[in-house]
Amino acid sequence: MTYCLGILLPGGLVFAADSRSNAGVDQITRVHKVTLFDKPDERVIAILGAGNLATTQAVVTSLREALGSGDLRYDLYTARTMFEAANILGGRLREVIDHDGRYVQPYGDAAASFLIGGQIAGENPRLFEIYSAGNFIEASDRKCFLQIGETKYGKPILDRGLTMQVPIDQATKLALLSFDATIRSNLSVGMPIDILRYEANSFAFNDYATLEEDHPYWCQLRDLYADGLRRVILDLPLPPRNWNG
Amino acid sequence: MTYCLGILLPGGLVFAADSRSNAGVDQITRVHKVTLFDKPDERVIAILGAGNLATTQAVVTSLREALGSGDLRYDLYTARTMFEAANILGGRLREVIDHDGRYVQPYGDAAASFLIGGQIAGENPRLFEIYSAGNFIEASDRKCFLQIGETKYGKPILDRGLTMQVPIDQATKLALLSFDATIRSNLSVGMPIDILRYEANSFAFNDYATLEEDHPYWCQLRDLYADGLRRVILDLPLPPRNWNG
Repeated sequence: MTYCLGILLPGGLVFAADSRSNAGVDQITRVHKVTLFDKPDERVIAILGAGNLATTQAVVTSLREALGSGDLRYDLYTARTMFEAANILGGRLREVIDHDGRYVQPYGDAAASFLIGGQIAGENPRLFEIYSAGNFIEASDRKCFLQIGETKYGKPILDRGLTMQVPIDQATKLALLSFDATIRSNLSVGMPIDILRYEANSFAFNDYATLEEDHPYWCQLRDLYADGLRRVILDLPLPPRNWNG
Repeated sequence: MTYCLGILLPGGLVFAADSRSNAGVDQITRVHKVTLFDKPDERVIAILGAGNLATTQAVVTSLREALGSGDLRYDLYTARTMFEAANILGGRLREVIDHDGRYVQPYGDAAASFLIGGQIAGENPRLFEIYSAGNFIEASDRKCFLQIGETKYGKPILDRGLTMQVPIDQATKLALLSFDATIRSNLSVGMPIDILRYEANSFAFNDYATLEEDHPYWCQLRDLYADGLRRVILDLPLPPRNWNG
């Protein structure tokens, strides 16, 4: 499994992805789930993939190789809007599934899904989730974060704390806490975490990092959060002896 | 969907269940997911069901109607151990699926799962999870809580805080916080919550209650927890400007 998260904010975007790939518990490897495309001062596009690794790699690699080809169906540099970029990604996903799906089916599931976000000059930053069917939804002020893969463990903390009014640093903190909850509860999501902060109108991905298990901030965040949460829970009043009393 | 939770402790058992049943978002009703069987001073058995409501009701109702029949296949009063009771429940589930499954299949999924826990004189309290296949697992000091239905949202808080060393009141608090996380994040799990605390060797279910949305303790717990959590998160250090700095 996988956990990928994208957050849309007025000031930019935050992306995070784990890096575990597994085909059963005895085939666990580290992979890259984040791919960055950029044309300085004109466009930045981040793609995060979940699902069948052969599918996500086929989609992303073929889009990378089509860059600059001028082919409107595949070249992300030709997209005039992030909506068009999402369309290219969704269309390519459909083609790969059409091409490989029935061969994969006896052995497993060829399905995949993606987050795609970024900014193209003339637009604000935008964020989309591409379903396995190739269609997609866009994040907005009503729903400012999108998740793919193993999404449920890390959703409650985002539902509580994350709105578009949250500053980008606070949103990044919440993103990491959401990964902490997921990693603690589910073996199929694992370190390191690739994290990307994008500041609107910078048109450059210069704040991308890989947090290993022993990253000082990650360790500090996990420990302080665990301690703080333990204290909050301990301090909560105990249930009454008589519920109706 | 549904969320049911059972917790095994040295001092007894805690059970909680939501009460929402839905066939699509336009058919939402309140149902009972907890059924209690008891023979004072000899046995207490709680059954919590998730999945297809017709299936869970068929299973539980037929077991209720078989009580006292002396039929070893169906009469929970004949079970000498909780393991035998789990076996009766799993066997009955298989029969109902065999009987109804193919008729239901064109319209949906007849599958169901259960938690069954309690105490039969001569044993300590025990707790089991019955899979849709009718086989089952037992809780132990290594895995003291079992969940069925919409289990993921509420798992992180239990993974953090719940061990067999936790007193029953604290475990009840954690159970309710687990429901709070689930209900906030998933529309298909809803109030009220049926909650049962069983004290080992009491052989009586005299601490069973239904917590409505406006129950004073539930409201207090949710509000204090939300406030406390918000403070903890706010107080956590912000991510560094430079991840490698």
